[in-house]
Amino acid sequence: MTRDTSSRLLNAYRTVRAHTDALTAPLSDEDQCIQSMPDVSPTKWHRAHVTWFFETFLCKGHLDGYVEHDPAFGFLFNSYYESIGERHPRPERGNLSRPSCVDVAAYRRHVDEAMGRLLAGGLSAEIAELVTLGINHEQQHQELILMDIKHVLSCNPALWPAYCTPGQAAPVAHTGVVGGSVKCAGATRWASFEGGQIAVGHEGSGFAFDNEEPRHRVLVESFRLADRPVTCGQWLEFIADGGYETPTLWLSDGWGQRLSHGWEAPSYWHLDDDGWQVFTLEGLKPVAADEPVCHLSYYEADAFARWAGARLPTEFEWEHAAHGVPQFGNIGICAGLHPVPVPVAAPEPSTAGASRPVPLLQMYGDVWEWTSSPYAAYPGFRVAPGAVGEYNGKFMINQMVLRGGCCATPEGHVRPTYRNFFYPHTRWHFSGLRLAADAQ
Amino acid sequence: MTRDTSSRLLNAYRTVRAHTDALTAPLSDEDQCIQSMPDVSPTKWHRAHVTWFFETFLCKGHLDGYVEHDPAFGFLFNSYYESIGERHPRPERGNLSRPSCVDVAAYRRHVDEAMGRLLAGGLSAEIAELVTLGINHEQQHQELILMDIKHVLSCNPALWPAYCTPGQAAPVAHTGVVGGSVKCAGATRWASFEGGQIAVGHEGSGFAFDNEEPRHRVLVESFRLADRPVTCGQWLEFIADGGYETPTLWLSDGWGQRLSHGWEAPSYWHLDDDGWQVFTLEGLKPVAADEPVCHLSYYEADAFARWAGARLPTEFEWEHAAHGVPQFGNIGICAGLHPVPVPVAAPEPSTAGASRPVPLLQMYGDVWEWTSSPYAAYPGFRVAPGAVGEYNGKFMINQMVLRGGCCATPEGHVRPTYRNFFYPHTRWHFSGLRLAADAQ
Amino acid sequence: MTRDTSSRLLNAYRTVRAHTDALTAPLSDEDQCIQSMPDVSPTKWHRAHVTWFFETFLCKGHLDGYVEHDPAFGFLFNSYYESIGERHPRPERGNLSRPSCVDVAAYRRHVDEAMGRLLAGGLSAEIAELVTLGINHEQQHQELILMDIKHVLSCNPALWPAYCTPGQAAPVAHTGVVGGSVKCAGATRWASFEGGQIAVGHEGSGFAFDNEEPRHRVLVESFRLADRPVTCGQWLEFIADGGYETPTLWLSDGWGQRLSHGWEAPSYWHLDDDGWQVFTLEGLKPVAADEPVCHLSYYEADAFARWAGARLPTEFEWEHAAHGVPQFGNIGICAGLHPVPVPVAAPEPSTAGASRPVPLLQMYGDVWEWTSSPYAAYPGFRVAPGAVGEYNGKFMINQMVLRGGCCATPEGHVRPTYRNFFYPHTRWHFSGLRLAADAQ
Amino acid sequence: MTRDTSSRLLNAYRTVRAHTDALTAPLSDEDQCIQSMPDVSPTKWHRAHVTWFFETFLCKGHLDGYVEHDPAFGFLFNSYYESIGERHPRPERGNLSRPSCVDVAAYRRHVDEAMGRLLAGGLSAEIAELVTLGINHEQQHQELILMDIKHVLSCNPALWPAYCTPGQAAPVAHTGVVGGSVKCAGATRWASFEGGQIAVGHEGSGFAFDNEEPRHRVLVESFRLADRPVTCGQWLEFIADGGYETPTLWLSDGWGQRLSHGWEAPSYWHLDDDGWQVFTLEGLKPVAADEPVCHLSYYEADAFARWAGARLPTEFEWEHAAHGVPQFGNIGICAGLHPVPVPVAAPEPSTAGASRPVPLLQMYGDVWEWTSSPYAAYPGFRVAPGAVGEYNGKFMINQMVLRGGCCATPEGHVRPTYRNFFYPHTRWHFSGLRLAADAQ
Repeated sequence: MTRDTSSRLLNAYRTVRAHTDALTAPLSDEDQCIQSMPDVSPTKWHRAHVTWFFETFLCKGHLDGYVEHDPAFGFLFNSYYESIGERHPRPERGNLSRPSCVDVAAYRRHVDEAMGRLLAGGLSAEIAELVTLGINHEQQHQELILMDIKHVLSCNPALWPAYCTPGQAAPVAHTGVVGGSVKCAGATRWASFEGGQIAVGHEGSGFAFDNEEPRHRVLVESFRLADRPVTCGQWLEFIADGGYETPTLWLSDGWGQRLSHGWEAPSYWHLDDDGWQVFTLEGLKPVAADEPVCHLSYYEADAFARWAGARLPTEFEWEHAAHGVPQFGNIGICAGLHPVPVPVAAPEPSTAGASRPVPLLQMYGDVWEWTSSPYAAYPGFRVAPGAVGEYNGKFMINQMVLRGGCCATPEGHVRPTYRNFFYPHTRWHFSGLRLAADAQ
Repeated sequence: MTRDTSSRLLNAYRTVRAHTDALTAPLSDEDQCIQSMPDVSPTKWHRAHVTWFFETFLCKGHLDGYVEHDPAFGFLFNSYYESIGERHPRPERGNLSRPSCVDVAAYRRHVDEAMGRLLAGGLSAEIAELVTLGINHEQQHQELILMDIKHVLSCNPALWPAYCTPGQAAPVAHTGVVGGSVKCAGATRWASFEGGQIAVGHEGSGFAFDNEEPRHRVLVESFRLADRPVTCGQWLEFIADGGYETPTLWLSDGWGQRLSHGWEAPSYWHLDDDGWQVFTLEGLKPVAADEPVCHLSYYEADAFARWAGARLPTEFEWEHAAHGVPQFGNIGICAGLHPVPVPVAAPEPSTAGASRPVPLLQMYGDVWEWTSSPYAAYPGFRVAPGAVGEYNGKFMINQMVLRGGCCATPEGHVRPTYRNFFYPHTRWHFSGLRLAADAQ
Repeated sequence: MTRDTSSRLLNAYRTVRAHTDALTAPLSDEDQCIQSMPDVSPTKWHRAHVTWFFETFLCKGHLDGYVEHDPAFGFLFNSYYESIGERHPRPERGNLSRPSCVDVAAYRRHVDEAMGRLLAGGLSAEIAELVTLGINHEQQHQELILMDIKHVLSCNPALWPAYCTPGQAAPVAHTGVVGGSVKCAGATRWASFEGGQIAVGHEGSGFAFDNEEPRHRVLVESFRLADRPVTCGQWLEFIADGGYETPTLWLSDGWGQRLSHGWEAPSYWHLDDDGWQVFTLEGLKPVAADEPVCHLSYYEADAFARWAGARLPTEFEWEHAAHGVPQFGNIGICAGLHPVPVPVAAPEPSTAGASRPVPLLQMYGDVWEWTSSPYAAYPGFRVAPGAVGEYNGKFMINQMVLRGGCCATPEGHVRPTYRNFFYPHTRWHFSGLRLAADAQ
Repeated sequence: MTRDTSSRLLNAYRTVRAHTDALTAPLSDEDQCIQSMPDVSPTKWHRAHVTWFFETFLCKGHLDGYVEHDPAFGFLFNSYYESIGERHPRPERGNLSRPSCVDVAAYRRHVDEAMGRLLAGGLSAEIAELVTLGINHEQQHQELILMDIKHVLSCNPALWPAYCTPGQAAPVAHTGVVGGSVKCAGATRWASFEGGQIAVGHEGSGFAFDNEEPRHRVLVESFRLADRPVTCGQWLEFIADGGYETPTLWLSDGWGQRLSHGWEAPSYWHLDDDGWQVFTLEGLKPVAADEPVCHLSYYEADAFARWAGARLPTEFEWEHAAHGVPQFGNIGICAGLHPVPVPVAAPEPSTAGASRPVPLLQMYGDVWEWTSSPYAAYPGFRVAPGAVGEYNGKFMINQMVLRGGCCATPEGHVRPTYRNFFYPHTRWHFSGLRLAADAQ
């Protein structure tokens, strides 16, 4: 590996590390300490864990003379790597006042200094790969930091503290409806795709996670995909039509969850005297009809699709449709902290004829889109040897794939082949949906 | 529909009803009353519920002058049909001493009499279809009756009562090993299959459940399948090699289950001074090395496959391989209450050359075989209108597909396209596994 | 011990055994099999456990040549005697279909025959004491059988099966009110008692449980006691006045229970279109205003007393007041299966002057009366040596004392010194209350 | 009320407020934010809650022109006063990063300034009483702050952070044994007390909580009391003799707790390669044989007493014996953060004769001593009108009384009549025991 590569990697490393620091800057030490439910980790823990990843997989084995920052940290900040050794139980991360945020900052500097030395010299391909994985890993945690702190702050119903002050509002377009048998009114349109034997999964030299590989062929029938995600306005129609009161719209397990949790709206929605409010990273604000609906469980997304006379896409339909869609172009941009409506610049439904293809809007960067695909290994998937082999493979059960990326997703993490995954009952992620249907 | 069809249906109806009675004959009223865990239903409840199915979907709507046996039964014996109305909570089925077994027998006679009248005349195709569904439904519950009573009786560790006295032992063959990188020693052999675009799912005029349809094309790569299920002897090797102590062999959720339940062997296995014993419907007996291993969770099956250097088949690989395999021929017969070893009549590994194909043994009738396929709707799957639409579709989440049928499965319920499904953590069904691997 | 004593004991033994059989005669084998919550034991289990008590403490050690009926029964029917050995977990008693009711009847006959031989000869004082304890023990279980089967049958909301057919109604009197600051209207009157240094606890040669001893002195201030238990009519006033909605009436732990269980009325009360119904051993029937209210938790009784401007009596006030009150005289008789109103024969409030003392009504035999006394050992209490020492002492924590006896209590179990005890949150016993107040 | 009283109250107010600040000074903002179990409250919450008490009961009603600091705080920092209004659920106190420690400090200053104004003028007796209650309330929370932060810090098994650095060790005496049938060897001696009719409960003009009143007479038999608390050395004997493995030593509920929590030693004890270590507010250190044993549940204390052939004292025996014992004299001094051994200055067992009375050591200030008395209202106890009536009365169920005060108890909170109370299963308080016995 050339010194040039080293230099590029070092820049990338420093950029991602600085971005994590910037993300946590608005938070007090107390904000960073709290674990509001077992799924959530304290901000401070995220900051230390991503550092532990570099220390464990790079500094310790690959940097001569490296002195471990604190042996206790190996126990406290190992997330789930059985091969590495004993670790602190996940549900107790919120019981750790020490190490303090200041201690964690020192830990970060200690490892950054070491990584600087490591990346100063020539690198083997193996090390370069591990550094790249570590950078992507930290980026994943940047999204988790925002998801998690949103949940933490939402557990303060007396103060509704904002993560940051709202900026300028993005320009807003009127959204609409899918025609035909779909109930929602508005301008949503169907884009059509030819079926056939297609190739899915990552290929090429760019970075991808192991769960995106190996590239392989699948058979897809012709299908249609809505040109935009389902909006809050459409969701209000679903609520008004008794969507949360009609068990036959729901999967059996989903109906059980709806009853036991008392779901009556997406997560973070609150009904008060002024109507539906939604808690966001910018504080509490009224639900906006033209924004993509967000913080849904799979069960809710699935029930909505059934109510709408449509279905969720498979992850392969989604991937097939996504190829060629600009990731952050003039349509579907990411506002950073909350999904935004389709911008005014979006092409209006054409009246000229059916021959112009319908462009897909907001495929990336507003909400993760639930697909109907269970999260499973691709044919031929092989777990990497050693502890990094625990990165993805062992979670391939009981979860559903989401595609696209959300407003909190770092830039390098949106691509056609990227697979996100969550249990069907969780809702603290920025998850929405886009309808699909068989070809007419 | 001809009178001839009616007559055939009436015969089929009477046969299945008589078989249910025969199955429950060895059980006392007290045996039939117990719900040993929420997944289990009392025998008496099964007998009434299958009767309720005929009463609700046939007698009530389609038989003039039918008088409901007891209005309370509609509440007590509705399993999960939201469209039908309120129902008794599943976990409380074991709290019902009344209606008594005698009352349930009277209920069965009442509905049998009515069904006799209904089936005496000419039938519409719709009614004939519903009767056929009802018959198949009752057959499914015949297997559930055996599964459930096995669990009930197993909860009596002082007496270990048997469901029935053991009969004659079936002839037993020596089982063996998969070669190559697979660890288990013995005579297991790989059968090889060409990949390609294949059709899966039910077609034709015979009965099938809606989840087997529509028939559609899938892409399958070339693969190998073990010629027989994994045996208890091979499982003992897995235990001895620390299979239950090695987290890296397990899916993360599976390892959590293994820890919280303290799994150290398949369900119903007990280690005493004489070694491993297994509780069966014929009572407690020593674990036999050459029997197919049974009562595994998906997590255990998956961990074993990883340990063995192999994998589980997909449901489509299994279905593809199963075509043409005799369902109940001279190999792989069903003993009724417990899986049996491969009979001596099974062809021994040939020394003559690789050209002779390896026959698949015990594809049907010993153990349900876990596949790596999540239970999902086939493309184009449509839920039937009305309450029968709740039969299968709403369970298509969080479960895994099993194929093949077990020793307790009624005869008409083994076919290449049949899809059974359970959550990955349950073990009270007769579930085992058969290894698969990519083509060499 | 004389042969005469033996003969009397044998008669007593046979009487109590026959009464248990009579009590269970209305129940089917299925009724006798069910454990509807962990506190409840199946009828069959009670029948076997009381038999085990005689077998374990008498036949095994004191009858030469006694052959144990079934070694497994020692495991299955030991309730809580750690000194005796391992035992079947309490919450799983309802999973035992075997031994059957028929087997249990045979067990009873086997032990009865042995006890007959033991009691035929001369007895040591120790054996006579143990037999007496066993008889009293079986009587306690006679009451438990009725309490438990009532709960079992109540868990059948479609059929509401009765334990037995209602007999003739007892004559009914109008009940009434406590005057002064007490809110309830009606004829309830205060009886007054002088305080002082009094003796409490059992003395003399009659049988008593160890928890009634040793007799000792306590100081009691002058107090008043209501002449009758609180009625359903008074309870309806409490409900109507928001008693279940006012947290300041409740103990903090009690309010937590009320919220988590959703209590809005005594146990077994159901509100339907015809008003409040109550499930009884004779089936569902309307709540009768003049009956003593029953199936209350301590928390409800305590909250009612606070609402009424009164308090619960201490167990010593109750005992002091109870001396000399006829146990089953012409007032306050026990109807057997449900509390009855004060009979018409009860003396009406006198207008002639305050000099005539107010007689106490229904002190025995309708409802157990919650006292404000935690269940604790009397000063100088000594646990008996051996396993029988586990009879009472180890439960002297977290429970409250009830006094008096209820409609289901066997005759020999009502006396001034008798101490019953339950956790403050349980309600399946026949528990009510009688108000007390300091002297005016 | 005179201006002099006002001035004394203002001084007392300022002293207690300053002491709370001093107690929390060693803690970081992160330390103060954590709720490690539902029983524990964050330090920050305690600081705000005691301030809320003054604001709610004094500033709001009694200070003209008082401006509430923040209306949300009334919701967040109400502990359990139903009469005041809605409040934040207790188990979620640890989810509040805001208000920050800085905000809480500002809240304290705001209320301190207002209280300064209130106390500057003449006071009604009612206000003076409420201020005194508020001061005593804050002192109780000073002890809770230490108890709770000890638990928080103990949940960090990688770092074992200390609340503060250990100071100089106090001089240590050899402790010993109770003679006679008591097993523990050493110098523990029995002090004897005459029984009779005694008066208990608070009287006089000094402050006391409502639960210490009214003073009333009780009957006590002659008894003996150990001259010192049970030590760690004696507890090690109990462990070595199988105390934690012998169910017949335990109350039934206690044995259930011991099994479900896996208790094998007092809370905060950890067995490592160097023997038993104990976590203290000064960090982890070896268990010292001559220190009073601490952090016991009632069940453990009760089991120990039974094992030792003794019993726990009643709260009245304890109170009777405590009269005249110096509260903080030259024996039994409080070290502040951890119980200390009996100092060398303690009088040695006399050999001169039985006539010299045995002095009681460490009655105050080392460990709270479990008594056998359930926490109940004294005869004639009346709840105060209004919200302060919720202070004590509604907790008088399910708890046991402890007497004496511990090393973390503020000075004004040790007196003969003081009643502390906890559930029998909790252990995070500084609780030990002193043996009692009937008179010989």
